[in-house]
Amino acid sequence: MRGAMLHGPRDVRVESRPDPRIEQPTDAVIRLAATCVCGSDLWPYRGIEAVSGPAPMGHEYVGVVEEVGSDVRHIEPGQFVIGSFFASDNTCEICQTGYQSRCVHAESMGAIGTQAEYARVPLADGTLVATPGTPSDDLVPGLLAASDVLGTGWFAAVAAGAGPGKTVAVVGDGAVGLLGVLAAQQLGAERIVIFSRNEARQKLATEFGATDVIVERGDDGVAALNELTGGLGAHSTIEAVGTQESMMQAIRSTRPGGYVGYVGVAHDVALPGDELFFSGVHLHGGPAPVRRFLPELIELICNRSIDPGKVFDLTLPLDEAAEGYRAMDERRAIKTLLRP
Amino acid sequence: MRGAMLHGPRDVRVESRPDPRIEQPTDAVIRLAATCVCGSDLWPYRGIEAVSGPAPMGHEYVGVVEEVGSDVRHIEPGQFVIGSFFASDNTCEICQTGYQSRCVHAESMGAIGTQAEYARVPLADGTLVATPGTPSDDLVPGLLAASDVLGTGWFAAVAAGAGPGKTVAVVGDGAVGLLGVLAAQQLGAERIVIFSRNEARQKLATEFGATDVIVERGDDGVAALNELTGGLGAHSTIEAVGTQESMMQAIRSTRPGGYVGYVGVAHDVALPGDELFFSGVHLHGGPAPVRRFLPELIELICNRSIDPGKVFDLTLPLDEAAEGYRAMDERRAIKTLLRP
Repeated sequence: MRGAMLHGPRDVRVESRPDPRIEQPTDAVIRLAATCVCGSDLWPYRGIEAVSGPAPMGHEYVGVVEEVGSDVRHIEPGQFVIGSFFASDNTCEICQTGYQSRCVHAESMGAIGTQAEYARVPLADGTLVATPGTPSDDLVPGLLAASDVLGTGWFAAVAAGAGPGKTVAVVGDGAVGLLGVLAAQQLGAERIVIFSRNEARQKLATEFGATDVIVERGDDGVAALNELTGGLGAHSTIEAVGTQESMMQAIRSTRPGGYVGYVGVAHDVALPGDELFFSGVHLHGGPAPVRRFLPELIELICNRSIDPGKVFDLTLPLDEAAEGYRAMDERRAIKTLLRP
Repeated sequence: MRGAMLHGPRDVRVESRPDPRIEQPTDAVIRLAATCVCGSDLWPYRGIEAVSGPAPMGHEYVGVVEEVGSDVRHIEPGQFVIGSFFASDNTCEICQTGYQSRCVHAESMGAIGTQAEYARVPLADGTLVATPGTPSDDLVPGLLAASDVLGTGWFAAVAAGAGPGKTVAVVGDGAVGLLGVLAAQQLGAERIVIFSRNEARQKLATEFGATDVIVERGDDGVAALNELTGGLGAHSTIEAVGTQESMMQAIRSTRPGGYVGYVGVAHDVALPGDELFFSGVHLHGGPAPVRRFLPELIELICNRSIDPGKVFDLTLPLDEAAEGYRAMDERRAIKTLLRP
């Protein structure tokens, strides 16, 4: 099959890779309907995360089940399915409390690489959720978004306690931040403030439910938010970048007793204990347990209540993955969808 | 009046200080029945926190109201009262959500100094809670504990989500950690594990409800806890020290999706963003909003359901405050009560 491999910084090649096959009796093999490039793929792409040798890329996926292992009970060939970037059994004590991304048997789909024609999905019964029937083609981008970027924004909004009566601030205007806005809106937030200086992203944030836009960053951004909130700060802040500056901006944007939901993969972040202590905020985040939210998100997408697929502003054939990465790296695209 | 002043590292003197008086119409002046030395007083005492010139000491207090300002409506002379280490109006938006230690009008009682015969209490109606009648003398230590150390341990246990079915780990065997054990027990925790290598403290922890004691520290302590919890870690961890080692031990002791309630005042702590991110824990803490819990704690103490006064294992006259500090500094005493 064809699949994307990262050979070094800014060197993505779509090349021949071995066809995946059932390795464990709990595996499934799916034929991808769509896959995409994640903001977190840009870390190794930019050389900020080291890569040792050619590495398969991609961890977002929707597609049709081709084959299942002998122990798979609930997933069947022919179903259209979605899973998260961590395979999970969905039965262990950690999964049962809703933290499937930290399942005791978790396996990284990133190591498998879903920017490809086919993918092996471990723990298929726990990992995959089937749609009701085969979705129409225009729903595929939205369903693909549920695989990571929507589920991650949703988790951030839940972790931030977004809900009725709440002012939610969103740090990060990438796909996750934008879908954090959508999640906050769906969860009933009263006011949603996005930090963004990019017109296209401001516009999409507003479509998704943002009520206010702040163009200032860092402490100037915090000051502008305080102005909007009677000097108190947000009840709920979504952090969707993962840098020192964005984490501090999120913590400083939040009132005492408020909540920060952070999902930007942390890079070179060190949180000063004394400032965190005196901030009095709740801090929760990490790799989003997307699987927790999939049934609900699939329903909202299939009944057309939400259209998270709008974050894909570039669609390319899989073979042009390199251009998809470049466009996101250069911020020409919010998120690139790849069609195998 | 007589009051304790810190003149420099390890130099506490009880000397003549001006009698406090009503300065604002919302003030009260109380005559202290008892006060005490806090673990956090040891930071400036040891010279780890700088002190510029002689500073009044103490922020824990119970006593009898002597006089109130003209705007005080609910607190009256003659009442036996307890307050927290931050005065708070108890009416602002932050107070109303239960974060009185971050009241928009908060004033530090530590700057006033309650290791003294009398103290001025700002925002008396919001800050002070009266006991039902004058408590018998043997209840005074317990009520004094509610002023900070019990309220702080209680907040940590609540922030850590201690409750039925939960395994709670407690990092720190000082007064706050020990009362965190008591709080976890009252909140219905199933299993309470204290990290301690001090026999007297292990004994008191067991009296307060600890079910297990781990003598190892740091990563060895974490390994021992994992052994007890099927490799998953605690659901809830109370951090009551405030060092890098204790914070990391608390985070590493907690399962993904679990909760760390941290109340040790952070000193030279920097939390590594990547480890925190992948830990998947909830982190919440800071200066405890003790005022939130005072009515409930006073009731539990006055009806003799709990006896948090046991943490005071040394009682001295106020004039011997210096010895009280020394005994805690040298870990000869868990906590020193001072009688003015």
